[in-house]
Amino acid sequence: MSSPTKFVLDESKIPRHWYNIAADLPKPPPAVLHPGTMQPVGPDDLAPLFPMELIMQEVSTEREIPIPEPVREVFRLWRPSPLIRAHRLEKALGTPAKIYYKYEGVSPAGSHKPNTAVPQAWYNAQAGIRKLSTETGAGQWGSSLAFAGSLFGIDVTVFQVRVSYDQKPYRRALMETYGARCIPSPSNETNAGRAILAKSPDHPGSLGIAISEAVEVAATNDDTKYALGSVLNHVLTHQTIIGQEAMLQLEMAGDDPDVIVGCTGGGSNFAGIAFPFIGAQLRGGKKRRIVAVEPAACPSLTRGKYAYDFGDTAHMTPLVKMHTLGSTFTPPGFHAGGLRYHGMAPMVSHLLALDLIEARAYHQKTVFEAGVQFARAEGIVPAPEANHAVKGAIDEALRCKAEGKSRTILFNLCGHGHFDMSAYQAYFSGKLVDQDYDEAELAMALSGLPSVPA
Amino acid sequence: MSSPTKFVLDESKIPRHWYNIAADLPKPPPAVLHPGTMQPVGPDDLAPLFPMELIMQEVSTEREIPIPEPVREVFRLWRPSPLIRAHRLEKALGTPAKIYYKYEGVSPAGSHKPNTAVPQAWYNAQAGIRKLSTETGAGQWGSSLAFAGSLFGIDVTVFQVRVSYDQKPYRRALMETYGARCIPSPSNETNAGRAILAKSPDHPGSLGIAISEAVEVAATNDDTKYALGSVLNHVLTHQTIIGQEAMLQLEMAGDDPDVIVGCTGGGSNFAGIAFPFIGAQLRGGKKRRIVAVEPAACPSLTRGKYAYDFGDTAHMTPLVKMHTLGSTFTPPGFHAGGLRYHGMAPMVSHLLALDLIEARAYHQKTVFEAGVQFARAEGIVPAPEANHAVKGAIDEALRCKAEGKSRTILFNLCGHGHFDMSAYQAYFSGKLVDQDYDEAELAMALSGLPSVPA
Repeated sequence: MSSPTKFVLDESKIPRHWYNIAADLPKPPPAVLHPGTMQPVGPDDLAPLFPMELIMQEVSTEREIPIPEPVREVFRLWRPSPLIRAHRLEKALGTPAKIYYKYEGVSPAGSHKPNTAVPQAWYNAQAGIRKLSTETGAGQWGSSLAFAGSLFGIDVTVFQVRVSYDQKPYRRALMETYGARCIPSPSNETNAGRAILAKSPDHPGSLGIAISEAVEVAATNDDTKYALGSVLNHVLTHQTIIGQEAMLQLEMAGDDPDVIVGCTGGGSNFAGIAFPFIGAQLRGGKKRRIVAVEPAACPSLTRGKYAYDFGDTAHMTPLVKMHTLGSTFTPPGFHAGGLRYHGMAPMVSHLLALDLIEARAYHQKTVFEAGVQFARAEGIVPAPEANHAVKGAIDEALRCKAEGKSRTILFNLCGHGHFDMSAYQAYFSGKLVDQDYDEAELAMALSGLPSVPA
Repeated sequence: MSSPTKFVLDESKIPRHWYNIAADLPKPPPAVLHPGTMQPVGPDDLAPLFPMELIMQEVSTEREIPIPEPVREVFRLWRPSPLIRAHRLEKALGTPAKIYYKYEGVSPAGSHKPNTAVPQAWYNAQAGIRKLSTETGAGQWGSSLAFAGSLFGIDVTVFQVRVSYDQKPYRRALMETYGARCIPSPSNETNAGRAILAKSPDHPGSLGIAISEAVEVAATNDDTKYALGSVLNHVLTHQTIIGQEAMLQLEMAGDDPDVIVGCTGGGSNFAGIAFPFIGAQLRGGKKRRIVAVEPAACPSLTRGKYAYDFGDTAHMTPLVKMHTLGSTFTPPGFHAGGLRYHGMAPMVSHLLALDLIEARAYHQKTVFEAGVQFARAEGIVPAPEANHAVKGAIDEALRCKAEGKSRTILFNLCGHGHFDMSAYQAYFSGKLVDQDYDEAELAMALSGLPSVPA
């Protein structure tokens, strides 16, 4: 173990631009459609929800989008995040593979989400916005936007999926510490929420429903905009600083990854670590295996249909082509709340359709087993979402062992699990069981996909 | 805000030795006494509890104690920890002061405690020990020793003060994730615990009682040693890497602190940031103000007596001269569980007696108010213990403002509050109130101090 463990960069090395993969694609992703007209939406259609700077990023095909200095200024608090060589995990696995992880848990909210929360809050503040509404699953996004809002004087209202609101009370306390308001969803505060509660008063909630509520608040209040923590192009683009930093750090390590692993819910942390490497490949660089890992209980990439669908349950969003389980699909209440989304980022879906990435799904017990093995070897307790990436990386390392081959594996440890210890308690007490979605519900949700003219 | 925010060091800059302040003292601290003979204890008296390497560190007067390479190897996971300039807090306060904080919350357990847990576990493992018992208040020390034990194959049993065990279930889950066993104290597993439960079945526990239980287990089991998370010289010495790193980082910043602030429970994080600076002063360097901040509900430095006392409630430890509230004193169940100790590190007590440091006490509402102000300005939510240091630093900065003077303030942000969000919930809901110790109980505890021949 005389080789270095941790690769750190000075704050001057925080990237000065975000990488936009749209510039390097062999073909552009399918258009986003207005559900009324079935015509591509334009920037003006999105203006009620987002400030124009973010809309322009959403549709940009420029390779480099400059990161404003005040945003980099905030990033300095925790970025560049460390890249760590998992020496002890390698030893515990007896693998010839080299395993590196990029650790995003050092941010104030404990995950990668502030990477986009800070610029989103800043662009809104620049546009004179003083109120933002959003949704959150596990609470990582909600607490990150709450943090960012506190820095730029923006009031943040968060609709949190009820099952996570109940499982993780400390995340709500964190949002409140940053000054935000947190509401369990479905709620009585919106038409979308009331309609669902009327039919199902004990509804556990879903990201799709919480998005409907947050969008409704923004769409019906002139002084409020909406912010989304994943899925959209500009959000994925904001996360690319993860992969850009990892490239510099792997250079320091004198290494180059063969396999890159990330977990996927909406797709943003996966995009963050993977897109800069995929872009390099598209521009003629090394071909790498890029593996997206998702929960078997909400398997949009591995079991969903690649089709046009709504991003939310109440059908307030435009139609996007993505891998989807159907916008009315409600996944079981498993512990990786940040991965409980019926769809997948259109850009990630497009890359899967282009065979530039691969996908696999795991049940939750096996990912917690991997997380505990990681914690006991490396010390860091991963978030339940991140445990999916840990499991994916461990399986790749074990494959190297079986094949007697050394490969370099990079994965994104997108957050720590300090707010998720109730899930570990459930795991140790045997109460955390594998959950499956309801096949009939999936069939029904897929049968309800909107029909879009070819 | 164009000046740098975060000062990072490469892992090669992790200190290669611990700094032992005993080498630079104008006079040595009073001897540690055997309670039976009232004679100074020797290394052999401590041998049932600690491995000899740690005992020799406890009594060493060498200035530099080498840090073993396998320990530095583990430190690389999170060290050197960042030094951060609190630009946004300075602006929020409108102070001419420069405020820096050393952030120890980046460790796997979220606090400074792994700095000593790792070497303690390593020295025990080297001595062939496979079982350790310890106590914990808030759980920061217990989870840190659990983490360190998992790295070196040591079974760890933790007696956790019951009020914290109940307030902070996630800390226990963290210990269990690292493979340790956690028992609420007072417990039925020891004579010390049973005696207290017989008199008071709902006893909230205290660090003094939990120490008795952990020491009893080690003293009565040949295969088990004991580990302490604060108070002892070798523990304080292990923490000096905090101050050593801060010195290098402040050099990078081109700055030099005038005031250094840390919170004190047993004294270890305070010692960690302060001792290297005090040592430099004792060797002829700059004179600085060094401020220890303690809870008003457990004010050993500001209201305790400087006298010989036991370190634990059941009187199983040697007698040490320290600022003490009396070994039978049970502080109220306030939220900074890590500061609920009746005594103070003998070395910190000695420095106060020598007028080399100053001390002040705050009630808990005002320190949480400071913590929330810090979180909203700087993004990091401090642990309740660390909020005492935050409050101390803010008051120093406001004094600079009142006097129209710029000074450089350094404080130790010894841990994050992600496991302590129930305390923030209590604060926001108005349920967190200022608590005072019972004056009659304090008088009785002080009247019971052992009499020691002059």
